[in-house]
Amino acid sequence: MSTELRTRNVSKFFRHNGEFDWNHISPADYKPGDDSWKGVSRRVFIGETGESTRFHLRYFEVEKGGYTTLEQHQHEHVVTVLRGRGLAVVGCKEFELGFGDVLYVSPNDPHQFRNDNHDEPFGFLCVVNAERDRPRQADMAFCPICE
Amino acid sequence: MSTELRTRNVSKFFRHNGEFDWNHISPADYKPGDDSWKGVSRRVFIGETGESTRFHLRYFEVEKGGYTTLEQHQHEHVVTVLRGRGLAVVGCKEFELGFGDVLYVSPNDPHQFRNDNHDEPFGFLCVVNAERDRPRQADMAFCPICE
Repeated sequence: MSTELRTRNVSKFFRHNGEFDWNHISPADYKPGDDSWKGVSRRVFIGETGESTRFHLRYFEVEKGGYTTLEQHQHEHVVTVLRGRGLAVVGCKEFELGFGDVLYVSPNDPHQFRNDNHDEPFGFLCVVNAERDRPRQADMAFCPICE
Repeated sequence: MSTELRTRNVSKFFRHNGEFDWNHISPADYKPGDDSWKGVSRRVFIGETGESTRFHLRYFEVEKGGYTTLEQHQHEHVVTVLRGRGLAVVGCKEFELGFGDVLYVSPNDPHQFRNDNHDEPFGFLCVVNAERDRPRQADMAFCPICE
């Protein structure tokens, strides 16, 4: 697939090379540098390169000891685990996640993804709306799940 | 998770039981009976039970000898393979798919998913817009990919 095709709204194939690496996709930092997260990479498959979907498909990996920002926002997350194991914190609840598990994080639920102690990276697909609000630091004093 | 919670817009966890079966999700037929498809099951994780996403997440499995309808439509597909191997026909092209491969089918490209000769079911996630047009039989006389 040429760079020109890569950025058009045409059918596209991203072959998985067997080590959680894909043709035509490079990993990037999860976010610009701040100390709210650690050891997380981000790949965007669909949504930022000419596609017309109303959603984006991304893949995140969290290395041992890493974690995403503890945050909340109006838009939803739909996560499916592809690699390793990790922890999802959603409000006052914690879920141990492994291959194939599917987690829906509903609007405004505070959440974080962690890999506290697994040598294998914790890797998951995450689908979000294309149009979405900016995340904000989570207010853990109010948990919409247990209130 | 209670049935009442299952249908509300709250955070939800679908645990994978290790055999491509999940808590709280039952497989259904791919479509009402017609002879355009064979041996395909469908699970809807997100989008039809109270969630507010602008997309739906589904999981399809195609048994040996099975195939989805050869069809086309304005809405896009984003497919990620979780299980087995199979073939994607997209216009005049064919892609052999296996674990982790990601395929984007752009608007109006004719397409079909097949498992011609693998004993293991060919299983994949498929994300689509929540608001979408109805599929129609594919017109293979015109292939937008090679035209």
